[in-house]
Parts: sequence; structure tokens; C-alpha cells
Amino acid sequence: MKSIAVLTSGGDAPGMNAAIRAVTRYALVNGVEVYGIRRGYCGLIEDEFVELQLSSVANLIQRGGTTLLTARSEEFRTPEGRKKAATNLKKRDIDGLVVIGGDGSFRGAQKLSEEHKVKVVGVPGTIDNDIYGTEATIGFDTAINTALEAIDRIRDTASAHERTFIVEVMGRDCGEIALYVGVGGGAEVISIPEKPTSVLEMAEAVRYSLKRGKLGSLIVVSEAGKPGHSYELAKKLEAEVKSPVRVVVLGHIQRGGTPTARDRAIASALGIGSVRRLIAGRSDLMVGIKGDLVVDTPLSEVVSKKKEIRLDYYEMAQILSK
Amino acid sequence: MKSIAVLTSGGDAPGMNAAIRAVTRYALVNGVEVYGIRRGYCGLIEDEFVELQLSSVANLIQRGGTTLLTARSEEFRTPEGRKKAATNLKKRDIDGLVVIGGDGSFRGAQKLSEEHKVKVVGVPGTIDNDIYGTEATIGFDTAINTALEAIDRIRDTASAHERTFIVEVMGRDCGEIALYVGVGGGAEVISIPEKPTSVLEMAEAVRYSLKRGKLGSLIVVSEAGKPGHSYELAKKLEAEVKSPVRVVVLGHIQRGGTPTARDRAIASALGIGSVRRLIAGRSDLMVGIKGDLVVDTPLSEVVSKKKEIRLDYYEMAQILSK
Amino acid sequence: MKSIAVLTSGGDAPGMNAAIRAVTRYALVNGVEVYGIRRGYCGLIEDEFVELQLSSVANLIQRGGTTLLTARSEEFRTPEGRKKAATNLKKRDIDGLVVIGGDGSFRGAQKLSEEHKVKVVGVPGTIDNDIYGTEATIGFDTAINTALEAIDRIRDTASAHERTFIVEVMGRDCGEIALYVGVGGGAEVISIPEKPTSVLEMAEAVRYSLKRGKLGSLIVVSEAGKPGHSYELAKKLEAEVKSPVRVVVLGHIQRGGTPTARDRAIASALGIGSVRRLIAGRSDLMVGIKGDLVVDTPLSEVVSKKKEIRLDYYEMAQILSK
Amino acid sequence: MKSIAVLTSGGDAPGMNAAIRAVTRYALVNGVEVYGIRRGYCGLIEDEFVELQLSSVANLIQRGGTTLLTARSEEFRTPEGRKKAATNLKKRDIDGLVVIGGDGSFRGAQKLSEEHKVKVVGVPGTIDNDIYGTEATIGFDTAINTALEAIDRIRDTASAHERTFIVEVMGRDCGEIALYVGVGGGAEVISIPEKPTSVLEMAEAVRYSLKRGKLGSLIVVSEAGKPGHSYELAKKLEAEVKSPVRVVVLGHIQRGGTPTARDRAIASALGIGSVRRLIAGRSDLMVGIKGDLVVDTPLSEVVSKKKEIRLDYYEMAQILSK
Repeated sequence: MKSIAVLTSGGDAPGMNAAIRAVTRYALVNGVEVYGIRRGYCGLIEDEFVELQLSSVANLIQRGGTTLLTARSEEFRTPEGRKKAATNLKKRDIDGLVVIGGDGSFRGAQKLSEEHKVKVVGVPGTIDNDIYGTEATIGFDTAINTALEAIDRIRDTASAHERTFIVEVMGRDCGEIALYVGVGGGAEVISIPEKPTSVLEMAEAVRYSLKRGKLGSLIVVSEAGKPGHSYELAKKLEAEVKSPVRVVVLGHIQRGGTPTARDRAIASALGIGSVRRLIAGRSDLMVGIKGDLVVDTPLSEVVSKKKEIRLDYYEMAQILSK
Repeated sequence: MKSIAVLTSGGDAPGMNAAIRAVTRYALVNGVEVYGIRRGYCGLIEDEFVELQLSSVANLIQRGGTTLLTARSEEFRTPEGRKKAATNLKKRDIDGLVVIGGDGSFRGAQKLSEEHKVKVVGVPGTIDNDIYGTEATIGFDTAINTALEAIDRIRDTASAHERTFIVEVMGRDCGEIALYVGVGGGAEVISIPEKPTSVLEMAEAVRYSLKRGKLGSLIVVSEAGKPGHSYELAKKLEAEVKSPVRVVVLGHIQRGGTPTARDRAIASALGIGSVRRLIAGRSDLMVGIKGDLVVDTPLSEVVSKKKEIRLDYYEMAQILSK
Repeated sequence: MKSIAVLTSGGDAPGMNAAIRAVTRYALVNGVEVYGIRRGYCGLIEDEFVELQLSSVANLIQRGGTTLLTARSEEFRTPEGRKKAATNLKKRDIDGLVVIGGDGSFRGAQKLSEEHKVKVVGVPGTIDNDIYGTEATIGFDTAINTALEAIDRIRDTASAHERTFIVEVMGRDCGEIALYVGVGGGAEVISIPEKPTSVLEMAEAVRYSLKRGKLGSLIVVSEAGKPGHSYELAKKLEAEVKSPVRVVVLGHIQRGGTPTARDRAIASALGIGSVRRLIAGRSDLMVGIKGDLVVDTPLSEVVSKKKEIRLDYYEMAQILSK
Repeated sequence: MKSIAVLTSGGDAPGMNAAIRAVTRYALVNGVEVYGIRRGYCGLIEDEFVELQLSSVANLIQRGGTTLLTARSEEFRTPEGRKKAATNLKKRDIDGLVVIGGDGSFRGAQKLSEEHKVKVVGVPGTIDNDIYGTEATIGFDTAINTALEAIDRIRDTASAHERTFIVEVMGRDCGEIALYVGVGGGAEVISIPEKPTSVLEMAEAVRYSLKRGKLGSLIVVSEAGKPGHSYELAKKLEAEVKSPVRVVVLGHIQRGGTPTARDRAIASALGIGSVRRLIAGRSDLMVGIKGDLVVDTPLSEVVSKKKEIRLDYYEMAQILSK
């Protein structure tokens, strides 16, 4: 292993920089050169490579976003695009590629491996925590803490005005963010894509909450692929409960920010783990977290299997909201 | 002065609890009884009074929201409502009333004073900082810091994706929040009700920003009485700049949360100032902040004059965004 | 199972309130009465019991400290003390006791069980993460995030002045806090009780750091049972490196504060888990976290075995600090 | 005015970067070249100048510390040192110098002006808020918010254990930090250099607090030139109140961190104000904040007069702690 490259792809997530730093430092300490690729697969195709030194990643661990930038690339979905990408790697004698990103990014990585024998290791970086093969993705912990801070604030206003609030959090097909934020925020109702709550159930919960003398109610719902759908939901709920329902769509504030201790730790462990595997001659896999350990899953499994929602956790939420 | 009452009215603001605490402690230390009225003018009409002790306000200074609750009262807009209110005060021999709230609340207070000779002192509590007669209102400093934290996070994502974001902050007729948040967040464009920026001007700023090689642009706009209007704005801007524009509506997360040091200080000073004036036999005024001092303004002026936007500050914003 | 009691013992930790809430809600939902005991074992001996309702734990999940208070009890170390404790439980027909605390608290719980057949379940609550049988204790995640925030601030000053700082964090025999904070803060040196770093090694690291052109160095050390020992250490290090070394002892700011999302989640899961086991007739055990699961360990093992430091993690720290 | 230079000197303060940014942008927009001098007066003597562009100050407003670095210079206290400094400015035809720093830095600036006719404008940047001629210094607002966050955490532990804590905050001759932090944190006692509280008075307050049934007491004291003096104080107080007293020395965590909204605003206004005055041909003055305005004070007054402590504020603290 003489040299490797690293890129970030898909939505940015806090801790991506910490992962880039770990990849770079671990490689350099082990005598492996490192190239950073800017703008994800776009830069891979358009040959935006920059050699990384220790100084390139100084004072980086605590920064949100990604210093390598990220973008979505249509061209990389085509065989021609991927061929250009592989050519750029080969002309520099780059033996391995670390892809920090989500589901879609790994699908691309897998094709690059199949078609051009590029050795790829995936590092799960997305706030959604929707990746099979890891208990946690880089960015998830920061995102739920950011959302929770917002919820704690909204609870103040909900109580002061004795009002119902719907808080819409991120998460397309996966309710992990809503689930953790709902539990941590003491929400009266949590609605996730895997277990949607009907308007009638919501109305019942709000009425029960009023009956118990609670000051205000919080309903946490996943964006579920329809950002802003909560405005419509609020109208329907208002019609049921005959009192005003406010909406807050947290949106992009959940993405950025200084990563938490846990995200820095996970990012560091996974970053190192990815390079260690490449050096050991292993690839076509994603490194993930299981308890205290770094574990592997073949990329083919990662992209074909769906992460199960923790039903025990969902039940816990139900109990705690009573 | 044997006893006074205190209420919070209108939208809640961080620091209202610190003001309630200061009112209570200063009154009790000076031998004056204090009643807290729950739910603002609603509770004043419906006789929801509770006597406050030192222990009622313990461990309260750092709490967001308002422990006395707040509400909007239609009935208080009628002479009959205000009569009930005055009766409730008189039957308890309450000599003075501290109203913590905004513009609308002071209008009500003034009528109560005119019609029923209730001695009223206003304390400006609203995140909007739109009150004549004070440089700062209770809650403004916390709100802009909360919004700024969100902006700092959004900047991470805007840079990582090299994208334009519109961030909509609170502020009906008054651009103070947008102005401070825009300056503090290094926004490329700030649009406030007093000086709206056209879509064409925004587009020009975004293009200039791209030309200078900036990673992403931030546009901060006031809600301006039309919460959510930024979605429409984004569409128009996208059509001009031919690239995606994302929207974040900060909404109610700007209201709650632990008050900042400054809001606790202002709230404490104004809370004490209000009781001091009642004890000194003065009323029909609002206490406000001017530099290091607590100053008075007649309620009649407060409700009839409009706070001027700081044009020097707006110009500063223009210079800094270049 | 008709009724249970819950207490917090030893040093307070963020998330204890979330655990109390989960214990209370899960018990009540399952038809079991709950008593809160104030001041830990002191209150158990002195009969300070208070019945808990749903409303007792409302708006509690986000609060730092412990609403049940905590204290160290000398009397509980004596057979007479524990006899009084058992008598107080029996006279109320309390069938099970949940003890939220650390090592020392579990030792007491175990004796109570042995001598008086009290059914006890332990919930690990301590910021130190030094308990055998769980990957994480309640409060650890918040503590490391708080410490990390402080470190990020100190890094600003260390860089601005190009200076060396020693930051002393909590942790008596266990280096977990220092390890995570050191990794997350990008420390140049980490010294933990399990692997102390000598002054000469520190000096070497500081000199290497200077040679590489770094702006300032951070050394994170555990308190290691000698709070404030860093002042002495700094003098020795100054003598070696011939330049000023500053010291910050983080101390008690690591204890309090709003719990993180993870601490709220762990506390909720463990709180529920503890009552679930009591209802199922199981006791003399501690509930702990392993990955996504709640697992059991006999109390006898918990108090006799020592949690191993994660050496892989320590090695990671070594690599990342190069 | 063809070109100016800017440096930061003395202890770093959050917002210094925002000031550097404002100086740079305002100068460039007005056609004036800007040089940044690294390491304060050291770099001025040793000729460490770097030309600043718009891109040099991008993404800087939210950063703690100072990107220009800071240092204390013994050589600048000598006429020879200042001569070298003046020579370096003159050889580059630099017409004006902006010094961001505190008291000591302004004394140096004044000498440079007297001896070598360098046109100097001071910008008050120090967390201590101890400068004559301004209501607020850059960094003060951030420092008190950071300290307050720590205090809020300590209050959790003080309450949970019903214990007394002494919290030592920064401030050599000036009690501003202790005063604001004590008021905002609801401290039972505040001791400042201008009005030291005796151990006996502290003991009385602690006993009164216990009598009132308060859970724990907080005593906020200024460092007062003797960092760590609180350990000694705690021993004396323990002897009086016969119960344990804990100490937290906040130290350097008060210096760094992301600046607050107010510090960014003040830094921006003062940074612009300083260049505006140089362009207008005015110098030998410090720009300061008075309410909403930027005001001037001759440097000779700034360095010879002492900022008065706000006695009204101190009295407020006394009342609120009762």
C-alpha cells in the first residue's frame, strides 16, 4: 500500500472532518501517502486531488461540515463517469479509496470496485443513522443533541403558552432521529416512517395530556421524505383538538455544528479502522460500530439490507410518554 | 405601598423568569407583598392570583419561558374585561401592577391605568427588541445568540455543499433580530422590513459571492409578519441564480432557552427598577435600558412611538457583507 | 410487586433525573407504587420517603443534578445503619429498591441484600465510567462533552499564545474521561492512572510539537485521586521545556448540566430495565449497556471486578497525537 | 491614508477575530491596504507583517482566540524596541496602527505615538471589562456567558449535595466579571477587589442560606491577582461554617470560545470605527461603546483613569442575594 485517497460524499455530517483527520494521520504514521478528493465523486471524476499532510488536518477535529467539500454527482452514476474516476486513481498509483458517506455513496463505491477493481472501504457518515452494519453513523449523535437543544427551548414556550407543538426532524425512511429526540425530549407523541401515528391518535394523546394537566404537548415527527409536511398535519390536528398547533421544522440546523465527543470518537476509530483494513489488504467492506468495537460488513450487504428500527426503543418511548 | 402584583403577557421571552424573581425579591426585601398572576391578562380577569415568597422564585433565574405562564386575552380588550381585572386587584388591596411584556401588553396596561387608576409599570419583555424607550428588551440577547448558533451550523453545511441558504428569523415590523444575526453570522445579504432587499439585489450578491470564490452564501431575512414567506422567495431566487437555494425557518426555537448573562442582568435591573418606581409613587411608565442606566418613558410614548432601526448598524452590515 | 423505592447515591451525574423519571413512569404504568428516598442512604436510614406520581417527574428529563438529592452516609457502613434502612423499607411493604449510583453505592446495596433480603437492582450513575458490567454509565457522555467544550476553548487560547496547557479532568482510578476528552480534543499527550506519562515524555511531546510548528500543546491528565496535582506537574514540565505551562483544573463543572441525548437515552433504558427486572422477580444485579442492549451483571461481580481500560482506544490516542 | 496595520496584544479575547475582520474589510472597501502583524508588539519589532485580503478574513467572525496571535513583549517596553517597531511601520509607509488589546497594550501604543508620531487607534479587547472609556470590552460578554454556563452546572451539584461552592472567576483589579456572573448565577455572596467580603460575612451568608432551607450556596469571587487564592479561603470558611466547602477555579476556560452575538457586534462596530477615525485623520484615541454609540476617549485618559465599578449594580446584587 503506497498511497490512498479519501473523499466525503452525500449530505455533510459533523465528524466528517474528524474522520478525514484520522484517515490522514493513521496513513502518514504508517508510511502511506494520502490524497484528499474535493467535492466527492465530482472531484474524483474531475481530478480534484490534493495531497494531505499532517498540517492539512491540524485544528480540524472540532469543525463541522467537511473541509473536502461534498456534492452529488450525476456523472458518477454512469459507467463513463466511473471509468474517468478509476483512471484518475490509477494514474496516481492510488491503491485504496476511503469513502465517507451514506447509502447512496456506498452504492457508487461498490460499482467502482466491481467495474475497476478499486479497493474501497466505506465509513458511515450521515446524520440519519440509517445504515445497515453499524449501531451509529458519524454525525448522528451531534444531530440528535442539536435537535434536543432546540426541543428543550420549544418546551419552554409550549409550557409558557400551554400549547401543542409539532417538531419536524430529519430522517427519510428511517425514524432514528425522531425516536431519540422524542425520547430525550419527553415528547408526548413520536411519529416515524416505520410506525406512523395517525392524526386521531395524536389528537387523543393531546387531549389526554391536557386532562392530566400538562402544560403543552410536543409531537416529534420525521420529515419522511416530505420536508414541511407538518404544516398540513398541524391543520388537521387543529381541526381535531380545536386549539392552535404550532409547527417548527428544524431542517438544516441539524446538519452542522461542532461534533460531540462521541462523534469525534467514532469518527476517529472508523477513520483509523478504514486505513488499517486497506493496509491489511482488505476491502469492499464498510467499517461500523458495535458497542466498543469496530466491525466489518461487506459493502454488498450494506447497500442491500435495511437497518431495523429498534422496536424495544420505540416501545420505551410509548411507555415514557404515557 | 402594601402589595403589588406581577404578570407576564404576550409571547414568552428568556429572562422573564429572572424579572419575576427580581420583582419578587426586591418587593419582599422592602416589606411589600407580591402576587403573581397566571396567564397574563386572562388570569387577571379570571382571578388567578398566587402569593409569591422568596422560595417561589428560588432556582428560577436561569429558566426559559415564564413560570407565571402567558396568554393572549380577547376579553381584556373590552371595557368589561378590564373592569373585572381592576376589581380583582382592588379586592386584594393591590396598589401597583408590573406588566412584563411587549407593545400590545402595554397598550392594555395603559387603558387599565386610564380607566381604573391602577398604578402600572411596564417592563419590556419580548425577543423582538421593537419597543420604543429602551435599547434592549428582555429576551432579545438570548434570541439572537440562539439564532446565531443555528446560523453558524448552517454555514458549515452551506460551505460544505457550496450552496445558498435563506435563513428566516423572527421580527414582525422590526428588523433588529435579522440585523444583529446577519452581522454576527457574516451574512452576504440582510433583508429587513424597514429596508427590504429585492430578489434581484439578492441574486447579484450571490453571484458576486460566487465570483469571489466564497463557499456558499447566507441570506438572513425577517419573518416580517409572513412566517414561511422564504419558501416563495427561494423559488424566485433560484430562477435568477440558476442554482438551488435552501430555506431554514428558525421559528420558535428563537423563543425559549436559558437566558444569557445580559438578559439576566437586564431582567434583574428592570425588575428591581419597576418596583422601586412603584414604591416611590411613580407609575404609567415603562422602565428601559440606556447604556448602563435604567431610564423611564411614559407608557403613552412607548405605545405611540416607533423604535427607529439603527441605520448606522445597517450600513455597517452592508460594508461587512461586501 | 406492590411498591418499590428509588434513590440516588454518591456523586451526582447528569441523567440521574431522567433515570428517576423512567423508574417512576414504568412502575406506575405497570401498577406499582413508587417511593423516592431523599439524600441516598442517609434518607433511607432517616426515613425520608416521598411517594412519587407522574406529576412528580414532569419536566425533569432535561435537568442536571438529582431531584432526590444525594449524600454520603457513614452510618450505612455499619450493620446498625443498614438495619434501620431495612426496617424503613419493610414497614412500608416496599418489595424492591433501585439504587442509582456508583461502585461504593452498589457495595452498600449488596450488603443490604445479603443481610436483610432486600431485593436490589443497581443502575450505574457516575460521570467516571468506571463500573464493571456496562460500556457506559449515566453521566459520562455529558461529562466528556462538557470537558470537551472547555478544551475547545482552551485550545483557542493555547494557539493564540502558542503555549502549553495542562488540563486536569476527573477520574480517580480510571482514565476513561481523560482518554475520551484527550482523543476528542486532539491532545498532544494523555496521561491516565492506568498508563501514566512521565514528565520527560511530556516534555518530549511538547518539543516535538514545537518542532512541527504547532501553535501550542494540550496535555490532558486524570485527577487520579489527587485533585490539583497538575500545578506541581506544570512546574516540573516548565523546568524541562523552559517555557511557561498553564494549568486548568476542570473540577466540578464536569458534573452538572443538562444531560446529552445519549445520557437521557441510557438513563431511560436503564431506569425501565431496573423496574422490569424487579417485576420479573430478579434482583441482586446491575443493569448495564452493551451496544444497543440492556444487559445484567450480578452485583457481586460488579463490585469485585475492575473495568478494563480500552487499550485499543489508548493506542488510537497515541497515533492521533503524533 | 494609503495603508494601515492591525495587531492583537495582551490576553486573547473572543471577538478579536471579528474585530480584525471588520478592520480589514472596512479598510479594503475604502481603498486602504491592510497589514496584519503577528504576535502583537513582538511581531511589530521582529517585522512579522502579512498583507491581509478579503479572503484572509473569510469564515473568521465566529472563531475564538486571535488568528494574528498575541504575545507579551519585554523589548517593546524599551525605547530601542519601540524604535525598531516604528522603523518597520515606516519602511512600509504604513500610516496608521490599530491596536486591539487592553490597558497595558494602550500604554505601549501611546508611547509609540509620542516618540515616533505613529498614528494609533486603540480597540478595547479583553475579557476583564476594566478599561476606562467604554461600557464594554470585546470578549467580556462571551466570558461572562461561559462562566455563567459553568455556574449553572455547579449549581446542579451544589443543590444535589446541599453544599457550599466557591467559584473563582477572572479579574485582577476589577470585579466586573464576578459581579455579572454572581448576579446572573444567583450567587449568595459576591466578593470583588473593589468591595472584598470577609470570611465572617461569607459564613453568615452561608448560615442564613441554610436557615432559609436553600439547597447549597454559591460564592463568586474575583481572582484578584492571586489565582487559586480560593483554596485558602475555602479552608477558612470551612472552619467557620463547620461543613465542607468546594472550590472551582474557572481559569482559562473563560478566555476562548465562539464569541457571542454582542461581542461580534461590538467588535464589528469598533473595528470599523477605528479605521474610520484613522481615515478621517484622527488618532491617539480609543474607540469605545456607550449604549448604542461608538465614542472616543483620548489614549492618555484611557491609560490614566480607572474604570469605576458600577455600585448600583453591586447593590442590586446584594438585594437579589438576600
